[in-house]
Amino acid sequence: MQIELYYWPDIQGRGEFIRLALEAADADYIDVARGEDGMTQLLDTLQSTAIIHPPFAPPFIRVDGAVIAQVAGILQALGPQLELVPSDEAGRAWVHQCQLTIADFVGEVHDTHHPVGGSAYYEDQKPEALRRSTEFRRERLSKFLHYFESILERNPAGDTWLVGDTLSYADLSMFQMLAGLGYAFPKAMARVGVEVPRLLALQQRVALVPNVARYLRSKRRLDFNNDDIWRHYPELDD
Amino acid sequence: MQIELYYWPDIQGRGEFIRLALEAADADYIDVARGEDGMTQLLDTLQSTAIIHPPFAPPFIRVDGAVIAQVAGILQALGPQLELVPSDEAGRAWVHQCQLTIADFVGEVHDTHHPVGGSAYYEDQKPEALRRSTEFRRERLSKFLHYFESILERNPAGDTWLVGDTLSYADLSMFQMLAGLGYAFPKAMARVGVEVPRLLALQQRVALVPNVARYLRSKRRLDFNNDDIWRHYPELDD
Repeated sequence: MQIELYYWPDIQGRGEFIRLALEAADADYIDVARGEDGMTQLLDTLQSTAIIHPPFAPPFIRVDGAVIAQVAGILQALGPQLELVPSDEAGRAWVHQCQLTIADFVGEVHDTHHPVGGSAYYEDQKPEALRRSTEFRRERLSKFLHYFESILERNPAGDTWLVGDTLSYADLSMFQMLAGLGYAFPKAMARVGVEVPRLLALQQRVALVPNVARYLRSKRRLDFNNDDIWRHYPELDD
Repeated sequence: MQIELYYWPDIQGRGEFIRLALEAADADYIDVARGEDGMTQLLDTLQSTAIIHPPFAPPFIRVDGAVIAQVAGILQALGPQLELVPSDEAGRAWVHQCQLTIADFVGEVHDTHHPVGGSAYYEDQKPEALRRSTEFRRERLSKFLHYFESILERNPAGDTWLVGDTLSYADLSMFQMLAGLGYAFPKAMARVGVEVPRLLALQQRVALVPNVARYLRSKRRLDFNNDDIWRHYPELDD
């Protein structure tokens, strides 16, 4: 059963959390918007009034005729089939809760360069972005990273993965977050990174999962860039 | 089985989404932080290193010995027991997806008065807040409200409830969002409200659900105030 992924074709963005899960599981999927007429298909689906459960925004997937949106919801739906969740319900709920907190983290990273909102360019909200990113680097970055470090530390199965003793989609998403932070805030991450060694080890471990490593070397993995969530503006870093 | 709710005691905030569900279901719960030594208990639990699945922030609940955080995750966990979800899995997933989009909406409402971040007072980020709220009222408010209006419109079971033909926790959360928006942005809501009649009817319908109506009249329902997510600063409205 082929999975259709719909996301903006030129950035990693929130779609990358889904893409990493699909790639890690070597799933049969197509990245619709990167194909021929892909953007038309994405926009048509987004605007279709025939969809009973419409997506608010990309990413969304279509699988078995159903349209599912929201990163955390998509991953929760695909997790069992992709074998990226523990077998027990409590473990699955915990993976999902971790993903919801990663989603909050993503929103805060995005707002460092767009504190005024998405309809104005970064260049038109630089003073606001300087304030927001300062607060982010001083308060939030460390709080989020220490939180996830403590999850690894508290995992009864050891600190290899966030939940239980196997790779889950939350590990993949945490890898993506750390990679993005390293791109966007190299100085702040050099400062805070030393305080969260388990997380940095997790990032390396995920990158070496064979299917993930293959994907990261492929052309399907786009580079980080300054149209994305994680942007490198040196003035917003330490 | 008693449910313990942990949330800041002096605001509705994100805790109110949980409280409304508990009240609508007439559940046996205690609002820990509003009891004696409540704040100590909240902070102790938040900082406890003995919790294997720690909350990142309030609200969180403790039930059957498990600690669960994240509004959407808590509601998903409690939904079946509180009879605030449809009986089928697809319907439950759709209620959850609606809740995730409400969570995004909540984040954007909050940031209208705190675009620079939570550690500075509103008074110290007024110029930024004026820009952010202008964008919010011009672009985002209408987009979110029309989206949820279309969900009511597309519901094959009719436009009485967001999902299927029974009250779900997403209806309760949408009620809360609309009530909060009416408090925070009365002028903008008077302008946009006429375009979303199904949503406003839903708001009224939820307020008349007997357990909800009883709760709204009780002292347990705090007033909206300007320490909360939805704040009334006339300069941020139309």
